Amino acid sequence: MPAQVHVFAPGSVGNVGPGLDVLGLAIGGAGDEVIAERAGMGGVIIEESGHPSLPTDPDAHSSGIAAREVLREARAAFGVRLRVRKRLPLAGGQGGSASSAVAGALATNLLLDRPLPLDALLRAALEAESVVAGRHADNIAPILLGGLVLIRSLEPLEVVRLPVPTRLRIALACPDRAMTTRDARAVLPAQVSRDVALHQAAQVGAIVAAAHSGDLALLGRAIDDRIAEPARGPLLQGFREAKRAALAAGALGCSISGSGPTVFAIADSDGSAERITGAMAAAYHALGIQCVTRVAIPDTKGARAL
Amino acid sequence: MPAQVHVFAPGSVGNVGPGLDVLGLAIGGAGDEVIAERAGMGGVIIEESGHPSLPTDPDAHSSGIAAREVLREARAAFGVRLRVRKRLPLAGGQGGSASSAVAGALATNLLLDRPLPLDALLRAALEAESVVAGRHADNIAPILLGGLVLIRSLEPLEVVRLPVPTRLRIALACPDRAMTTRDARAVLPAQVSRDVALHQAAQVGAIVAAAHSGDLALLGRAIDDRIAEPARGPLLQGFREAKRAALAAGALGCSISGSGPTVFAIADSDGSAERITGAMAAAYHALGIQCVTRVAIPDTKGARAL
Repeated sequence: MPAQVHVFAPGSVGNVGPGLDVLGLAIGGAGDEVIAERAGMGGVIIEESGHPSLPTDPDAHSSGIAAREVLREARAAFGVRLRVRKRLPLAGGQGGSASSAVAGALATNLLLDRPLPLDALLRAALEAESVVAGRHADNIAPILLGGLVLIRSLEPLEVVRLPVPTRLRIALACPDRAMTTRDARAVLPAQVSRDVALHQAAQVGAIVAAAHSGDLALLGRAIDDRIAEPARGPLLQGFREAKRAALAAGALGCSISGSGPTVFAIADSDGSAERITGAMAAAYHALGIQCVTRVAIPDTKGARAL
Repeated sequence: MPAQVHVFAPGSVGNVGPGLDVLGLAIGGAGDEVIAERAGMGGVIIEESGHPSLPTDPDAHSSGIAAREVLREARAAFGVRLRVRKRLPLAGGQGGSASSAVAGALATNLLLDRPLPLDALLRAALEAESVVAGRHADNIAPILLGGLVLIRSLEPLEVVRLPVPTRLRIALACPDRAMTTRDARAVLPAQVSRDVALHQAAQVGAIVAAAHSGDLALLGRAIDDRIAEPARGPLLQGFREAKRAALAAGALGCSISGSGPTVFAIADSDGSAERITGAMAAAYHALGIQCVTRVAIPDTKGARAL
C-alpha cells in the first residue's frame, strides 16, 4: 500500500426534492479532499481540520469518525493522520459533512493491506454522518458511488444505483446564510397526512422512472416536495423568490438541496442552466443577499484517489 | 364504426404492496367484458349488469358511468346499450370495478365516429371508479394501458408506464371472504409518521428501479408496505398465515392485492408460482377458508376489442 494517499470526494444534492433521506445525486465541481498516511499504533489524528470552524478532535469531525470506523472494522494494527481540504461550503446543503466522511473512509481504506468492500465504507461514513448530521445515507451513498442513488433501506443498508440522464445539468445557488442539518431536521413534521405520503412516494417513483428513461421533463415535474420544502422553505430567506425566478427562467424543477440553504434547479442544457443561475442570483441580490452560483454536471465516478 | 363491439379488460393488482393508490399491475387471465351497441338518442342502458349483486342503474354501475362520461366528453348524439360479462370476483381486490369501468369506456369509445384519446378514457373510468370505489387510478390505468403503471399525479392525471420484467409471475389466492373497497379504505390511517412515509417512498422508488432493471429479488424486497397492510391485514382472516406460507414457499414478496381479500405474491418462474399458490391454499384450508388460486402473467396489452 502507498505511504500516503490523497482522496477526492464530490458534493451532492441530498433529497433531490421529494426523496427526503432516500435520494441523492453526486455533483461535479468542488469536493472535499483528505490526505492520509499511517501514523502510530492506532487511532486517528486530524492534523488539519480543513476549516477554522471544524474541530481537530477526530471523534467530532466526520472524516475522523469515518476513518476510525474503517480502522476498527479492518482491525488495523496502525492509526492514520489526516489532513482535510474543505472545498464544500459548511452547512451549505451540498453534502459537505458526507463528502468529508467518505473521503476519510476511502483514504483510510486505501492504506489498508486488505481494503474493505464498498458497503463497509458506506457503513463507516454513515456512522460519521449519524454523529455530525443525523442518520441518513442520501449524501454518503452517491458521494461514494457516484451518480444518482436510491436508499431502499437503512437497516440493513441497501442502496440502488440509478442511471443518470446524460443531458442533466444542475444549477446551484448558495446564499450566504448557513443552515445546520440539525436545525433543518428539527422543523420536519413528525407526522404527515396519508395523501402527502402517497404523493411523495409517487414523485420518488417518477424520479426513478425518469432516471431510467432519460425524461428530464418528467424528472422536473416530480421535483414536487410536500414534506421538507414546506417546512424548511420559510426558514430560508430568498428561497421562494429564487425558486420562482428559476422556474421562470426555464428550470424543469427546483427545490432545496439537502437541508439548504443551497437551492438547486435542473435543466437539460448548459445554456439553460446558466440562465437559471443568473435568474436565481438576481433574485437573491434584489433582496440584498449575496450568493454563489454554479452549473454542475452530475459526478458519475464518486470518491476517488487523486 | 361497427354496429356492435365486444371489449375485454383485464384485472389488476392495485397498490403492488407499498404503492398505495399510485402503482398497479394488469394481470392476465380472467377479465370483465362489455358488449356495446348504439341505442337511442342519448344516455346509457345496462341490459345485463353481469352479476345479480350489480345494479342495472347505469349511474350506479362502473361500466355505465364510464360509458356516460365518454358520451358526454364526445358530445355524442346517440346513446349506448351495454351487456356486462363479469368474470372478476366482486369485492375481491383484483380491480373488478375498474375493469368494468375501462371496458365500458373503451367499448363506448369504439362506437364513436371520432374516438377519444386514451387520456380521456382514463378520466372517464376514473370518474366511474370515484363513484363506486373511491378516487384512485392505480387499477384503471394498468387495466387500460396494460403492464405496470405509476400514477404520478391525479390532478392533473399523469401516468408513467413502466417496463414489466419478462420472468415476473403473480401467484394469487382469493379466499371466499368479501372486502369492499369502501370498508378497506375506512381503516387506512389519516396520518402516518414521517419515517413510514419515507420508507414507503423508497420502496416505490425501488419497485420502479426493479421494473426497469428486471431485478425481481429487489422488486420482492420492496414489497414492504407499512401503511395499508398493517391496517388491513388484521381484517383479513388468514392473510397473515397465507403470506407466511407464500414466503416460506419461495415468494420474492407478498402483500394484499388492492384492498383485498385477494393476496398476491411474486415469483420468477411458473414452477415457483405454482408452489406458492399451493402453499397459500393450504394455509387457508387449514383455517377452514375456501380459496381460489391461480398463477398469472402480467397483461401487457391492456383493454382491447375481441
